[in-house]
Amino acid sequence: MPAADRPFAIGIDIGGSKVAAGVVTSSGELVDRRTLPTPTDRADAVEGAIVRLVADLSADHPVTAVGIGAAGWVDETRRIVRFSPHLAWRNEPLADRLAARLELPVVIDNDANAAAWGEYRFGAGQGCDTFAMITLGTGIGGGLVIDGEVHRGRWGVAGEWGHLCMVPDGQICPCGNRGCWEQYCSGEALRREARALAGTGSPMAVPLLELVGNDPEAIRGHHVTTAALNGDPACLEILCGVGEWLGRGLAGLAAILDPARFVIGGGVSEAGEVLLAPARTAFARHLTGRGFRPLAEVVAARLGNDAGLVGAADLARRAAQEPSPRA
Amino acid sequence: MPAADRPFAIGIDIGGSKVAAGVVTSSGELVDRRTLPTPTDRADAVEGAIVRLVADLSADHPVTAVGIGAAGWVDETRRIVRFSPHLAWRNEPLADRLAARLELPVVIDNDANAAAWGEYRFGAGQGCDTFAMITLGTGIGGGLVIDGEVHRGRWGVAGEWGHLCMVPDGQICPCGNRGCWEQYCSGEALRREARALAGTGSPMAVPLLELVGNDPEAIRGHHVTTAALNGDPACLEILCGVGEWLGRGLAGLAAILDPARFVIGGGVSEAGEVLLAPARTAFARHLTGRGFRPLAEVVAARLGNDAGLVGAADLARRAAQEPSPRA
Amino acid sequence: MPAADRPFAIGIDIGGSKVAAGVVTSSGELVDRRTLPTPTDRADAVEGAIVRLVADLSADHPVTAVGIGAAGWVDETRRIVRFSPHLAWRNEPLADRLAARLELPVVIDNDANAAAWGEYRFGAGQGCDTFAMITLGTGIGGGLVIDGEVHRGRWGVAGEWGHLCMVPDGQICPCGNRGCWEQYCSGEALRREARALAGTGSPMAVPLLELVGNDPEAIRGHHVTTAALNGDPACLEILCGVGEWLGRGLAGLAAILDPARFVIGGGVSEAGEVLLAPARTAFARHLTGRGFRPLAEVVAARLGNDAGLVGAADLARRAAQEPSPRA
Amino acid sequence: MPAADRPFAIGIDIGGSKVAAGVVTSSGELVDRRTLPTPTDRADAVEGAIVRLVADLSADHPVTAVGIGAAGWVDETRRIVRFSPHLAWRNEPLADRLAARLELPVVIDNDANAAAWGEYRFGAGQGCDTFAMITLGTGIGGGLVIDGEVHRGRWGVAGEWGHLCMVPDGQICPCGNRGCWEQYCSGEALRREARALAGTGSPMAVPLLELVGNDPEAIRGHHVTTAALNGDPACLEILCGVGEWLGRGLAGLAAILDPARFVIGGGVSEAGEVLLAPARTAFARHLTGRGFRPLAEVVAARLGNDAGLVGAADLARRAAQEPSPRA
Repeated sequence: MPAADRPFAIGIDIGGSKVAAGVVTSSGELVDRRTLPTPTDRADAVEGAIVRLVADLSADHPVTAVGIGAAGWVDETRRIVRFSPHLAWRNEPLADRLAARLELPVVIDNDANAAAWGEYRFGAGQGCDTFAMITLGTGIGGGLVIDGEVHRGRWGVAGEWGHLCMVPDGQICPCGNRGCWEQYCSGEALRREARALAGTGSPMAVPLLELVGNDPEAIRGHHVTTAALNGDPACLEILCGVGEWLGRGLAGLAAILDPARFVIGGGVSEAGEVLLAPARTAFARHLTGRGFRPLAEVVAARLGNDAGLVGAADLARRAAQEPSPRA
Repeated sequence: MPAADRPFAIGIDIGGSKVAAGVVTSSGELVDRRTLPTPTDRADAVEGAIVRLVADLSADHPVTAVGIGAAGWVDETRRIVRFSPHLAWRNEPLADRLAARLELPVVIDNDANAAAWGEYRFGAGQGCDTFAMITLGTGIGGGLVIDGEVHRGRWGVAGEWGHLCMVPDGQICPCGNRGCWEQYCSGEALRREARALAGTGSPMAVPLLELVGNDPEAIRGHHVTTAALNGDPACLEILCGVGEWLGRGLAGLAAILDPARFVIGGGVSEAGEVLLAPARTAFARHLTGRGFRPLAEVVAARLGNDAGLVGAADLARRAAQEPSPRA
Repeated sequence: MPAADRPFAIGIDIGGSKVAAGVVTSSGELVDRRTLPTPTDRADAVEGAIVRLVADLSADHPVTAVGIGAAGWVDETRRIVRFSPHLAWRNEPLADRLAARLELPVVIDNDANAAAWGEYRFGAGQGCDTFAMITLGTGIGGGLVIDGEVHRGRWGVAGEWGHLCMVPDGQICPCGNRGCWEQYCSGEALRREARALAGTGSPMAVPLLELVGNDPEAIRGHHVTTAALNGDPACLEILCGVGEWLGRGLAGLAAILDPARFVIGGGVSEAGEVLLAPARTAFARHLTGRGFRPLAEVVAARLGNDAGLVGAADLARRAAQEPSPRA
Repeated sequence: MPAADRPFAIGIDIGGSKVAAGVVTSSGELVDRRTLPTPTDRADAVEGAIVRLVADLSADHPVTAVGIGAAGWVDETRRIVRFSPHLAWRNEPLADRLAARLELPVVIDNDANAAAWGEYRFGAGQGCDTFAMITLGTGIGGGLVIDGEVHRGRWGVAGEWGHLCMVPDGQICPCGNRGCWEQYCSGEALRREARALAGTGSPMAVPLLELVGNDPEAIRGHHVTTAALNGDPACLEILCGVGEWLGRGLAGLAAILDPARFVIGGGVSEAGEVLLAPARTAFARHLTGRGFRPLAEVVAARLGNDAGLVGAADLARRAAQEPSPRA
């Protein structure tokens, strides 16, 4: 069956708790999906899960290629996982091994790159050839589209702006540096600030603590977002603070990249305008050259959790169609 | 005479004190040059100086196009100067006005973009399709080449990484923000640190003060560089400090852009390894993901003061040869 | 029995662990007392405890009124508890409910206001119509007497100087702000500093750790005071640091209020001159206009733990004697 | 002529450049006025100027008393100037000397106290028995009304909240301390921030520099206000920053005093909502116990430059009518 008759690509999103796979059309529709729990013990077990998911889905759908989005660093050829925080992969030639087992073209990409591509093709990045996507999860993921292509950098690791140093000698970061942006603007920042408040025994923390059975250790970023959206004043203040750091960081990215638009995704972005309004204010206040240049838009992502999966599928389809190895 | 018979392009570099013009071959050779003092009183006087320089040079050389590098912000079409710190231009349609007067194709570009392009084509950026050029003058200029093209951003103002905030509430910057990178890594930083030391009456400042007739107000960045190259310990320390900030900033740029190489130019870069060695050390220490990724090279620019002029000429030649408006 | 024949008032102090009640004469003598454990589960159980204590005491003594001092915020009418950190009260009309059950006039006041009044009438504030009382417990409580009256402010919440911001972006406080005075000058500050020292494994912390069975988590503020009074050098340093913050804060209060005297009470004040001597030094060093104005006295409270109870009783007696509702 | 037939009091405002005197009715109307330049060379020359102004005005109007508002510190009896920054007075028994020469009752008061009283009786403080007035001039002046009386403190120097320490080791203040509120929230703060920006050669400072003939040394606070009201973005940012510090300081005052209202006067307050809007936002964000208490109002003063003069006259009238020495 020629590629033209196989209209579907499979996108796979490897998360910390589950591996999600979906069948995606060339117009970005997700027509079928399956998930399996992420086997965290062995890297080859993850490979097995991917093979099973693809086998299941391709039994029902004619599939042309498989795209994988993974947290961590993928090399510039998009064939090797340099490093993944959740899994045991180190310089793993995952794409070639999977291609051999699946007998399908496979590409891998950083999950935030895949999400940026998904938003570019079918979501909040449409029509905007140069934009940056910021996914606010536990940390910050970044995907950069320049002139209609994902910019991956010389070694595949561009877009790691979550590790821009914003505060010399600031909060320590898992990357080993201090003061990284994602320490001030992420679910982790929400969690840390909220636990610090709760740890003081503050009455302001009472509504938040009720959400977590009065166990401060149970507070997660999403509890803060939920409470803020319910109008809890302390959580609104915390989100507003994170929004301000978001805007300050965007001002840095705009100084470097001058994108037309910033698309804000990830779990924290579910706070919507509670987050984006202070971010826009801080962005406009801290942008270098404000007054002598237009302001980039700051908008919410539109594809939600499916962005990475949809983007990965589309990147794989494009790679399979190209004569050259570049997507 | 057809373009093929007119092998030369003119590059022009508008500086704070002089306007330099040069005739450049397609292989980047500078075969003739003229300069005039920069008329700082009126913007149209600058235009007149450019016209005169081009007239003089094209009387002697068959010229195909004129490229202009200017400090300040040039719009994304490369025809309008949005804003220039030295001159009175505000949203000035300079390219079209000059093209009409010169009867030659004209493009304008930010001076650091032009220098980056010059280094890319004929200097320290050769063979490296994705790299960032950092010019350390009074402030920081930036030029970014991605996939063999200058990245100018949506509104022409990309590469302004001199205004990345490195220190919240730090030194005030002409851009109106505080803590910008260029406040810690530039000729201005050398000047400020050296004057501060001299202002304490420190015996460490004696050799530097001798260079400037014992007038602390006369200290400029280049005095610090000169003294450091002569082995003055205090000035070596100051340059080393600036080098460390250079490396910290490069780590931020690498997090975002993952370039293959950083090319360091501008007057401060004349300090050579005195500056670059501590920069490389700090870069390697602060790069996020160090150990899991290759280190970008940090090298000195090779074209010196001619980089902007040569790059501007080459950008103009390319633009004139292309059917489309993109260089 | 007319009021003149009922010379006693009952004062009640609601603490985190016990409810103390005492029978107080018009000259401030405490002639009888009872206590019950504080029921922390339900607010109405606290009410029940108060009713029982008053019933017991008034069976033995002819009582004219009941005054209650409570941690937390009492409204400007002294009838409603706006908020109490230890109890579940929120806008609770406690005074009217108790008055109905007790068939006696009842007033409520903030515990630090009651203590300030007690010291004013019968203790270290005597003869001083304008003074400020600072009670150093876990946090800071404040009571302000101006022209011989407690100053309660428009909504009853004056005197909360424990939440003056002394350090922008400093230690987080239960009030939701950062850098509040009470984070640097209180039992909590002693505890935090001492635990931080012990957490380093410092040999300086050994004597203190011996007091708490070598369990750093068991360190409380009073252990630091005890050790300091025993001559332990590390704890003396910590108390001296807290004393310096005390003096700095008093300088702020003096700038605003210009009181004749500061009376320092609460558990931390048991350190006596170990605390007050550095406080006076810092006060004299940081007072604005020092040299052009007399220095307010900084003295220890005299009524100890009874100040609140005695003050509450006296406030109740005064209110009952007045034709108007204001004490 | 009995006092009832002499309906006027004279108020005098001793400023750094002129001595203003006005005839004020019992309903706060200013029916006549005279000014003389302030003789800065000798203190007794100021006395002479006051005598002349009073003689001139009382020739035309039947006057019952004279009230004087002076920058600096007046003792608690309101008869002695402890210290005045502009003049050479040190513990000067000004009131008694003037009363003897003028043959009229005289009281002196701190100028901000007089202004607060003026606003209380006839301006933005009307109907509000407990409020604080903050006058933002070169520094911060403060006047505090509690229960319908000016609170002057034990030694007459209350209300000096301009010297609350907001930033440990911050900007140095003429009072000899560092980090005083007035260093961040005053005309001096506007001046310092604006000059710092202009000193960088920033293009953002161009419109402001045009107001002062391009001499950065000529910038005063009122230029910043003027430019901001004309829409200049840089000056708007500076005023917004000062407004935020205003709100932070008000949060401190509210923690201590719990006033019903803050009245903001002085030259900087001419910025109106440009200043007050960010002040209210910061106040609401930093107020301890926000959410559990009402927010005090933050409003602009209404009497402008006449507040001190009108207030001084009214204070003098009240003092003259009272049997006791208290106003």
